[in-house]
Amino acid sequence: MAAPAWAGGLRGLRALLLDISGVLYDSGGPSGGTPIQGSREAVSRIKKSGLKLRFCTNETQATRGKFVEKLQHLGFDVSEDEVFAPAPAACRILQERGLRPHLLVHDALVPEFDQIEKSNPNCVVIGDAAENFSYSNLNEAFQALMGMDKPLLISLGRGRYYKETDGLKLDVGVYMKALEYACDIEAEVVGKPARMFFLSALADMGVEPHQALMIGDDIVNDVGGAQQCGMKALQVRTGKYRPCDEHHPQVRADGYVNNLAEAVDTILQQLNQGESAQAAGM
Amino acid sequence: MAAPAWAGGLRGLRALLLDISGVLYDSGGPSGGTPIQGSREAVSRIKKSGLKLRFCTNETQATRGKFVEKLQHLGFDVSEDEVFAPAPAACRILQERGLRPHLLVHDALVPEFDQIEKSNPNCVVIGDAAENFSYSNLNEAFQALMGMDKPLLISLGRGRYYKETDGLKLDVGVYMKALEYACDIEAEVVGKPARMFFLSALADMGVEPHQALMIGDDIVNDVGGAQQCGMKALQVRTGKYRPCDEHHPQVRADGYVNNLAEAVDTILQQLNQGESAQAAGM
Repeated sequence: MAAPAWAGGLRGLRALLLDISGVLYDSGGPSGGTPIQGSREAVSRIKKSGLKLRFCTNETQATRGKFVEKLQHLGFDVSEDEVFAPAPAACRILQERGLRPHLLVHDALVPEFDQIEKSNPNCVVIGDAAENFSYSNLNEAFQALMGMDKPLLISLGRGRYYKETDGLKLDVGVYMKALEYACDIEAEVVGKPARMFFLSALADMGVEPHQALMIGDDIVNDVGGAQQCGMKALQVRTGKYRPCDEHHPQVRADGYVNNLAEAVDTILQQLNQGESAQAAGM
Repeated sequence: MAAPAWAGGLRGLRALLLDISGVLYDSGGPSGGTPIQGSREAVSRIKKSGLKLRFCTNETQATRGKFVEKLQHLGFDVSEDEVFAPAPAACRILQERGLRPHLLVHDALVPEFDQIEKSNPNCVVIGDAAENFSYSNLNEAFQALMGMDKPLLISLGRGRYYKETDGLKLDVGVYMKALEYACDIEAEVVGKPARMFFLSALADMGVEPHQALMIGDDIVNDVGGAQQCGMKALQVRTGKYRPCDEHHPQVRADGYVNNLAEAVDTILQQLNQGESAQAAGM
């Protein structure tokens, strides 16, 4: 089979950045999720290939530690220092700027903010709070913002929805928009698609944007965000992917693949061909 | 005391349109609300003056019948056929267009839709659902929309927040924005500030926009909405009024008054002066 068009641009590729939910596994259900066919092997193959690898997630329903534990339990070869997640990034920002958050997040994320001063809040931090997005909790966050001299809302991502095993679920971006409208303000986003978030993962690998490829299921936050940083990006047809994403009015992926395994197959094949050609002096 | 500048434009005034919550009373608390000082007498004085009068509310936490009962119990001279509310207007639209709603509204509003077919929904109707705005209910409405060929969201108003006796509360517009963002659609608004809503109240009184004055506490939905229909509009400094409303970037009221009683004092005084002058052949 001929290589797809996007594979032609892989010369110089040194690093991969992978989204997790919808790319490695579908979240939800009693076991916390189901690996997507072939994705465990794909991660192992990347690691053996010599390509650098980081994971870049907007997951905020658990601390990074617990989240990585779950992935390991599902059979993925992932360690905590390979995962970039919004909450640790937000904690750095809060400390640097002397901000004291009112938190509207999932119960399981709260320990991530253990070291952060929270009395007399001067900002609101929202994550994917799921069931904690009650009317009463959203109203409290709203009242906290309205009571501030300069209302500051920090949102851990701006996703619209994600896919769990039992269907699509509203994501943090929806509640970010709700509070933006209620208070007539614009939120600061930490996590994808924020430029700083991608750049910090690239810096950690010591590569430039043009040397890295992002693979995700979210056409706007994964693909669009990475492209805005100068990376190439593929969309997988798993997770929250919908066929209309391939005709998105603003974002066009560099390529579309059926799943992570297919992407990794093609990438490693191309890199090997490149090496063989080099070895043969072509 | 000299009449304020806005009073100069009252010649030809034939009708008043009053918002209810924040103008007649503050909602909330065990008795369902507290009349605003002087507002009961103000309503009675308008009725005696010969000016036509209608009430134009975005209240959707109760059926119109129950809502009017509460106002009467609070001592207001109001009857059901004088009150324009979004739910009865929405029912007319649903019937005219053969729409079957998935409802996300306050429990007490549900009976307003008793006569409407709701099986196999082809639109979502949201009102001020308050505690019913749970994550699970909002997610159900989202999934219903995503399952439609052409997702249609009808919102009973687009207010940001209202004031109850124990503080500011998020209004339906915030959840409308949330669902708009989640589904990448634009809602149809029934209620203020929709043009049709004001015009139907004016038609019921048989007056033209330039013959009517709107009085409300919401700078955008009451004042801005009425002005877009060609009416003049005052903002009261009660209810959800905030001082920064007087420097709103888009909307400037024709006048600001401390409360309804002050507005009615000034209006009746000006009309009486006008009549006296006419009688004197001036």
